[in-house]
Amino acid sequence: MRMSKMGIKTRHHRGQDEALSQEFQSTQLKRHAAGIYGMGNLLVRARNKIIEIIRKNLENYECSEVSLPIIQPKNIWEASGRWSTYAKSKHMFTFEGRNGEYCIAPTGEEIVLDFIRENIVSYKDLPINIFQIGNKYRDEIRVRGGLLRSKEFLMKDGYSFHANKEDMVREYNAMKECYIKIFSDLGLTAIPVKAVSADMGGKVSEEFMCPSPVGEDKVLMDEKSGIALNTEVLEYPEMLEEIKQNNPEFRIDNLKEVPCIELGHIFQLGRFYSENMNGYFVNANGKKEPYFMGCYGIGVNRTLGAICENNCDEEGLIWPKSVAPYKCIIISTPENSEDSEKIYADIKFKNIDVVLDDRADTLGSKIKDAKLLGFPYMIIMGKKYSKEHLLEVETRKTGKKSFLNLDELIKLISD
Amino acid sequence: MRMSKMGIKTRHHRGQDEALSQEFQSTQLKRHAAGIYGMGNLLVRARNKIIEIIRKNLENYECSEVSLPIIQPKNIWEASGRWSTYAKSKHMFTFEGRNGEYCIAPTGEEIVLDFIRENIVSYKDLPINIFQIGNKYRDEIRVRGGLLRSKEFLMKDGYSFHANKEDMVREYNAMKECYIKIFSDLGLTAIPVKAVSADMGGKVSEEFMCPSPVGEDKVLMDEKSGIALNTEVLEYPEMLEEIKQNNPEFRIDNLKEVPCIELGHIFQLGRFYSENMNGYFVNANGKKEPYFMGCYGIGVNRTLGAICENNCDEEGLIWPKSVAPYKCIIISTPENSEDSEKIYADIKFKNIDVVLDDRADTLGSKIKDAKLLGFPYMIIMGKKYSKEHLLEVETRKTGKKSFLNLDELIKLISD
Repeated sequence: MRMSKMGIKTRHHRGQDEALSQEFQSTQLKRHAAGIYGMGNLLVRARNKIIEIIRKNLENYECSEVSLPIIQPKNIWEASGRWSTYAKSKHMFTFEGRNGEYCIAPTGEEIVLDFIRENIVSYKDLPINIFQIGNKYRDEIRVRGGLLRSKEFLMKDGYSFHANKEDMVREYNAMKECYIKIFSDLGLTAIPVKAVSADMGGKVSEEFMCPSPVGEDKVLMDEKSGIALNTEVLEYPEMLEEIKQNNPEFRIDNLKEVPCIELGHIFQLGRFYSENMNGYFVNANGKKEPYFMGCYGIGVNRTLGAICENNCDEEGLIWPKSVAPYKCIIISTPENSEDSEKIYADIKFKNIDVVLDDRADTLGSKIKDAKLLGFPYMIIMGKKYSKEHLLEVETRKTGKKSFLNLDELIKLISD
Repeated sequence: MRMSKMGIKTRHHRGQDEALSQEFQSTQLKRHAAGIYGMGNLLVRARNKIIEIIRKNLENYECSEVSLPIIQPKNIWEASGRWSTYAKSKHMFTFEGRNGEYCIAPTGEEIVLDFIRENIVSYKDLPINIFQIGNKYRDEIRVRGGLLRSKEFLMKDGYSFHANKEDMVREYNAMKECYIKIFSDLGLTAIPVKAVSADMGGKVSEEFMCPSPVGEDKVLMDEKSGIALNTEVLEYPEMLEEIKQNNPEFRIDNLKEVPCIELGHIFQLGRFYSENMNGYFVNANGKKEPYFMGCYGIGVNRTLGAICENNCDEEGLIWPKSVAPYKCIIISTPENSEDSEKIYADIKFKNIDVVLDDRADTLGSKIKDAKLLGFPYMIIMGKKYSKEHLLEVETRKTGKKSFLNLDELIKLISD
């Protein structure tokens, strides 16, 4: 891609209270209204790579991707009883159309049950685990930037269905393992933290928390025992007692509050939704029973936000290679611009994602922008190139510079 | 993927008036409400492949992918004057939230101008061409199935911005070329058809029409001259006269009406939206001018529908390889089920998309389902495998059968 075609305008100053990635984000996020954002090419490409990593990992666990509608008829939300609770809290957008009332999906338990219940009718059809990657909508009171908490956001939400509790627990544990692999592939630390379930007991759930200075969740961590708790757990002495008994090293005094971004949340939902939504199967004895259900979410935009914020230095972003929107950028002086076009074509031909900074600007100013935008490799065609035809390659993360010919360069950036 | 995990229930009978792909579609589309559908794994995976082909082609033309919000504030639609026209026609969904009124995007001209106008301020910033792949919403009166005309549908919409009309026309022609390549990569016939612009003259636009018995658009085609016209053109004698002058072979009498599915539409929008939406740049003489604008859409769900309908025989679907959700399916008798697991693992290891039909069912019934679902290759592990350890491979399209060892099989299905 040519830099001149990307419509990027950079700024190189940061307010005192601004997050480290703020200068980068301001090139990529357009605020259209409170909590409603457009997203530039670099964020979208990185997000597409995150999606691919999530997909591949889920498919390895035999989860199958589907697509559920985002505008949903009122009747399925009345069946679960959540139309009125959501309406009261005003967190759900609702509207009227030609054919009745709808909501704009804040979550997907109702629609997924409506999706599968006609086909999954026997214990022989179970278990299944399906997921989708799509927008969700919540009319948040307090919005926080374009990636961490907005009214429209991209989620991966998955749902599994089981004939009994044991199988639900087995799949829950498999998904936990899968999530750990996903976040590790994304280069993120994500600690599973026991959450207190809203209905006190019934539901088991864990949040995947990524330590970050911009995080708005507070997690209590005890480094010695490796225990991480949601602060709410302190209000439940019986939960603390249980933890103490299972982990003799654990001390409440050792707990330190760490700000975190919640990246994911997995739940053992049990039979609440299937009972209310007519989600029944016939068991091996010919009796009708509601499915046991698990639910598994990842905030894709938030994950992108956590990657931005946790891969930053004073000069800007440093994209991890696994999700970098482009692997490298070519920057040249005007006298080498013809050759830079050739190098650009050669790298593209190798199927490596590359940007050519073809703007009319100084080498220094282009380098500054390239560092801000975080390309893993900068290929600089300046004096050394004019004299010796060697390409200067700077690795963004380490600052290491090498002078290479094209073959050596391709080898380096193909890793 | 294991067939047992996909929640697919097939039916093998078709009503007299039903489209050829109806039996397939009924395994993959769930109607949640009028015009609102969920989509199963096979359609979603094929759609993902369509999206990848669209992306790659647009990127070759230096178009850059962005993401624009789907819920959009009222004020930008008031600026263009379309809030009231759309509200009157009731084709646009609108609703109220905490922070005001919104619509759910039926199209993106307003939001894309809001997205770029702060950054694209000089003739030096032009031209640019950006696109997104996202849902669009229209409250259709007459809905037609889950893929051809629904209230929620996936679109690729792209917009280009230019300093003058000539550059807009150049990009329009480039996009036309790109669209022809996209549809050809997807194995579809898509004929560019001159459309009559709503405001009689001003706007130039062409629709990409795919001949199909289920199409609801009528296109007039003259095989001899290669001219294709929207039926509306007959009402404009001056347009017909112009065509006659430029194409001496053209005869009105030769025109035949062909039912088509509209897959895409490209427009030279000119300056209508930029004038109304404050989309100005400073030209080389230091004067403010509105951008010239082009707009390029592809109905992704419709394209998927056209692929289904036009790649079908009496037994079911025949996926073109470029978009097949899975390349092959393994079907075995119970005595070979252990070996089928090994073959499944080997093919997966080669990164070939494969389904293992692990359901408890007869070989014949599984073959019938595999044909309905359209996998390009069926790998059958029956008697021949038991005796000689040779895999029977049937090519869905030709019906050709071969008996191969694993290496030969992998070679065949890797093409």
